[in-house]
Amino acid sequence: MKAAYLESALRVRTRDVPEPHPGPGEVLVRVQSVGVCASDVHYYEHGRIGRYVVREPLILGHEPAGEIVEVGPGVTTRAVGNRVSIEPGVPCRTCAHCRAGDYNLCSDVVFMATPPVHGAFVEYAAHPADFTYPIPAHVSMDEAALIEPLSVGLFAARRGRARLGDRAVILGAGPIGLMTLLALRSQGVPDVTLVDVEPFRLAKANKLGAADAVDARSEDVGITRAGQFDLVFETAGNPVTLTQTTRLARRGGRVVLVGMTADALTPIDTNEVVDKALDVAGVFRYANTWPVAVDLLTRGLVDLKPLVTAHFDLKDAGHALEAARTRKDTHVKVMVRP
Amino acid sequence: MKAAYLESALRVRTRDVPEPHPGPGEVLVRVQSVGVCASDVHYYEHGRIGRYVVREPLILGHEPAGEIVEVGPGVTTRAVGNRVSIEPGVPCRTCAHCRAGDYNLCSDVVFMATPPVHGAFVEYAAHPADFTYPIPAHVSMDEAALIEPLSVGLFAARRGRARLGDRAVILGAGPIGLMTLLALRSQGVPDVTLVDVEPFRLAKANKLGAADAVDARSEDVGITRAGQFDLVFETAGNPVTLTQTTRLARRGGRVVLVGMTADALTPIDTNEVVDKALDVAGVFRYANTWPVAVDLLTRGLVDLKPLVTAHFDLKDAGHALEAARTRKDTHVKVMVRP
Amino acid sequence: MKAAYLESALRVRTRDVPEPHPGPGEVLVRVQSVGVCASDVHYYEHGRIGRYVVREPLILGHEPAGEIVEVGPGVTTRAVGNRVSIEPGVPCRTCAHCRAGDYNLCSDVVFMATPPVHGAFVEYAAHPADFTYPIPAHVSMDEAALIEPLSVGLFAARRGRARLGDRAVILGAGPIGLMTLLALRSQGVPDVTLVDVEPFRLAKANKLGAADAVDARSEDVGITRAGQFDLVFETAGNPVTLTQTTRLARRGGRVVLVGMTADALTPIDTNEVVDKALDVAGVFRYANTWPVAVDLLTRGLVDLKPLVTAHFDLKDAGHALEAARTRKDTHVKVMVRP
Amino acid sequence: MKAAYLESALRVRTRDVPEPHPGPGEVLVRVQSVGVCASDVHYYEHGRIGRYVVREPLILGHEPAGEIVEVGPGVTTRAVGNRVSIEPGVPCRTCAHCRAGDYNLCSDVVFMATPPVHGAFVEYAAHPADFTYPIPAHVSMDEAALIEPLSVGLFAARRGRARLGDRAVILGAGPIGLMTLLALRSQGVPDVTLVDVEPFRLAKANKLGAADAVDARSEDVGITRAGQFDLVFETAGNPVTLTQTTRLARRGGRVVLVGMTADALTPIDTNEVVDKALDVAGVFRYANTWPVAVDLLTRGLVDLKPLVTAHFDLKDAGHALEAARTRKDTHVKVMVRP
Repeated sequence: MKAAYLESALRVRTRDVPEPHPGPGEVLVRVQSVGVCASDVHYYEHGRIGRYVVREPLILGHEPAGEIVEVGPGVTTRAVGNRVSIEPGVPCRTCAHCRAGDYNLCSDVVFMATPPVHGAFVEYAAHPADFTYPIPAHVSMDEAALIEPLSVGLFAARRGRARLGDRAVILGAGPIGLMTLLALRSQGVPDVTLVDVEPFRLAKANKLGAADAVDARSEDVGITRAGQFDLVFETAGNPVTLTQTTRLARRGGRVVLVGMTADALTPIDTNEVVDKALDVAGVFRYANTWPVAVDLLTRGLVDLKPLVTAHFDLKDAGHALEAARTRKDTHVKVMVRP
Repeated sequence: MKAAYLESALRVRTRDVPEPHPGPGEVLVRVQSVGVCASDVHYYEHGRIGRYVVREPLILGHEPAGEIVEVGPGVTTRAVGNRVSIEPGVPCRTCAHCRAGDYNLCSDVVFMATPPVHGAFVEYAAHPADFTYPIPAHVSMDEAALIEPLSVGLFAARRGRARLGDRAVILGAGPIGLMTLLALRSQGVPDVTLVDVEPFRLAKANKLGAADAVDARSEDVGITRAGQFDLVFETAGNPVTLTQTTRLARRGGRVVLVGMTADALTPIDTNEVVDKALDVAGVFRYANTWPVAVDLLTRGLVDLKPLVTAHFDLKDAGHALEAARTRKDTHVKVMVRP
Repeated sequence: MKAAYLESALRVRTRDVPEPHPGPGEVLVRVQSVGVCASDVHYYEHGRIGRYVVREPLILGHEPAGEIVEVGPGVTTRAVGNRVSIEPGVPCRTCAHCRAGDYNLCSDVVFMATPPVHGAFVEYAAHPADFTYPIPAHVSMDEAALIEPLSVGLFAARRGRARLGDRAVILGAGPIGLMTLLALRSQGVPDVTLVDVEPFRLAKANKLGAADAVDARSEDVGITRAGQFDLVFETAGNPVTLTQTTRLARRGGRVVLVGMTADALTPIDTNEVVDKALDVAGVFRYANTWPVAVDLLTRGLVDLKPLVTAHFDLKDAGHALEAARTRKDTHVKVMVRP
Repeated sequence: MKAAYLESALRVRTRDVPEPHPGPGEVLVRVQSVGVCASDVHYYEHGRIGRYVVREPLILGHEPAGEIVEVGPGVTTRAVGNRVSIEPGVPCRTCAHCRAGDYNLCSDVVFMATPPVHGAFVEYAAHPADFTYPIPAHVSMDEAALIEPLSVGLFAARRGRARLGDRAVILGAGPIGLMTLLALRSQGVPDVTLVDVEPFRLAKANKLGAADAVDARSEDVGITRAGQFDLVFETAGNPVTLTQTTRLARRGGRVVLVGMTADALTPIDTNEVVDKALDVAGVFRYANTWPVAVDLLTRGLVDLKPLVTAHFDLKDAGHALEAARTRKDTHVKVMVRP
């Protein structure tokens, strides 16, 4: 089968590799759609993310969906022909985190497209059956693939204990910011303000139902909207927006940090955390979100299609990464279709 | 009656003032013991704390206990002769915070010894009956007074969702750090490490049951004990210890910020908040802690007496403040006895 | 002014009484719409509800809305001309329940239309300002009045920790059952099954967005749908439906009891509570729901108008009660308009 | 090796069977102590518990501890010589309950001594390594074995959200009632009243630190102590005590049901659940309790030794079961020592 390898920074090449076989408890999925994520782009550009370094050619992509073409020994809950969304991280199932339900914190997780684990820019992938989720016929493969970033938004909302009546602000209107918007709106939190510097993304935010979309180049929300929000999401990973989080929250408010920054340390007004009695929660991936996301898509309660701005063949995975890297003015989610 | 006024920085003078009368719903308390708090010392030294400025001579002291000598109109739940601990902040009872149970966040709170509200370095104080709490005969007035700082420790433990089996570290072994230690130990969290630079306070921590007491001058716990704690309390208000908090927490751990710092912004590793999926909670005062604290003291489950290191008469309130200000090597809690 | 008194069982008479004056912290509201509640009907029919006995002629009605025509001393947060929804129960604000945010549990609450406290079938009512909630011009007085029963639905959803993806069933499609349906739908829980014996109410449930509406006369859901629901609401107060609750819940599910029954004891399968590790929560009135309800109505996220099936003048309050008592086949909410 | 089989009701016989071998991820444990549980006694006496029927001779015992004598392929976290407590139920690790941390609700759990799964009245048992927990040298094998019933007490306290200051009552002073007492006391809840009809058990409760121990034959606590408790635990599985639970709880209180009853339906005052806004939680086994229990025993915060009232050899397992069945006046926990 074909697989797209990141050979070195900014260089992707398609190779022929053997098809995988599903082991016990696994299914074989013919991959039909894969979203390009910011972390894929980061590996593509820099060859590393923090302590994760691409030392050998690596297959990127960790937002896949496809059709089951074979089931491995012992699999009874999935069948050939099932159209499925794939949850890309498979935890150890035995550590204290896994057993307590916090499997996103498992230190032995095997996560697609995180070196040295290969990802989903392939024609076929073997995966544990219980980390594939059947979707109904009316949900598209693109939407099934985008359950992965939607899960980050859903988990951010859960970590922020979003509830009816909350006024929320999301710093950053990239894919994760927009997914958080959709997650909030799906659960009765429509008063959501998005902040970004990119007009294209602010327009998307408006289209997806933001109550307000603020251009950060012309307004410093940390000053103009201080104390106005029950719930603050930081998805930009920027020192400026990180410092704004405590400003924006009201007394007793909640701050959710999703974005990673390039800086080792970021200036934070910890006195505001104390004086306002804030709750600050970090979001690392997600756990137990797929069933909810499948339900939302099945019922049409979120519409992910407007997020998709381009499609590429597997042989053009490099172009897909390049588009996602360089054209934030016109792209939100770029999809690869093996 | 006599009352000790802070006239200007470092200058305290006792004056004769009229005795107050208890209004409807109030009781009149003959004050018998008042703890000196770091915030009293801060006003004494600097004449202000942040936006709170002492513009007129101010009576300090907000950790009082005493005996009820008169009850105002309509009071049926307290009686003359009741020995009571006084909760010093009386909220508005009508705002959304008050009605939701978060009365510590009430912006209209009337809080003793916070300008322009006078405090408890007086012989008699009128106070709403429901913010006075009867204590049994075997609990001393000093202990009743120290329910106030104990409440901060109890609330910090509550905000940190302390639970059986937790390994905890407390940065700062001053009164609040030690109270947090006692609060944790009282609820089945004995594995508590204290960190400070003052040998006298570390010795106190050991005496009060700390599992470990670390001298920060000879060990950088942010390095030596990184990732070892379920629960991290910052009570020192120091940029160094604030930055250590995220280092010390394990994945999925909880950080509780209690200390205020003189710095506008403090460098924090927000990536650790994200990557470890931390929960960070700010503690501003306390709410609904007195009944629990009275119960703990009544049953002898915490012993506050070892914290008391000196007593002063009301006329010597200035000396009490001076001792608390300058002798951290020998004092934890200094008490004023009107 | 006019006021409608329940003189004795099934007998209502309009009297002339003096207009009230707003005391300190109070406002005077010209009442414009009042919903008729099942408890009003119960007093009207039986002259008592459990330990609450109508010994003197009593003004019923506790779901009022109107316009502020006068503000009492000290009121700064409301103004003449404000259109407001009134929260009918005013707690003591000093007991442990009130101070912890659970003011619905206050044993000294003053609650409209609960003997000996008069209710809202009047032209003018004085009420504490903070228990009146301004509504925008586009929200009707009927909808403002119906925030009271909506609050029961919202609180039931809160007590049941309703969350995205839940499958819910509501036993009883009366006003409270329907309000619970609306509350659930507003927060991303659309998979709601209603069960009742009254076709008119099942049709209303369908119209209001129920995923399914089951006629209990032809299907025993305790058998046909056993174990299918994450969340079970009992609003009928019927021994049959009460016994069904544990049957309907899945393992780890949640049961919320809202309805009161005439029986002293009801047979419950407590082994199912244990074996399925259920959570069962009782709902008594509500707390801290009005701000959320006002927000939902303001944004048009719930539509209460279809619930209103008739209007009566104040002088016809008796007819309103009679209609609500006898015509469950055609009425959901009957409104009185003073 | 030897194994004690329940051949038929009241008939136990020791047989020679092959030693098991540890599979991948498993360890082989030489069993040294096994507690006799009420469910063992129930199978012994009746040959079934509800839908679980002993159709083939069955090895009972599910509270084991012992020493690891062999580790299977891939096991790196345990070593030969480790003294371990065994958690007897191994869940599927793949269902929604398991992945959400509620593995006690897994419907595919393999649980020792639950037909057709054999138990621990054997000399050697193979078990997944991560469901064995190393204990330090100063914790005895009996105590390690009794972590199983202690886990029920800990989980009951967790389900009841036990917290500082709670007044608790436990209905039933059998092993589970006493374990719940120890669990509560270990976390700062000393005000615990036990109720039973057996003087021997009430005496044990007193010895283990109960604040009060009430003989139910001479006092109907449902009447004498109505509304006095924040937290009510039912461990007797008796219709009388089950009906008392709602009586005993205060408004806003919590009720925890642990005991299973022989009755299909039990009369419960559901109006009290509503009117008092109670939370009722069912306890089915436990999840994520062993690490906490090991920590408590390691630190000496609970002392389980007083619960052990007799020891029997493996060949006398039948006598152990008979003693546990017939001598509740002199036995709490009977231990089998293979």
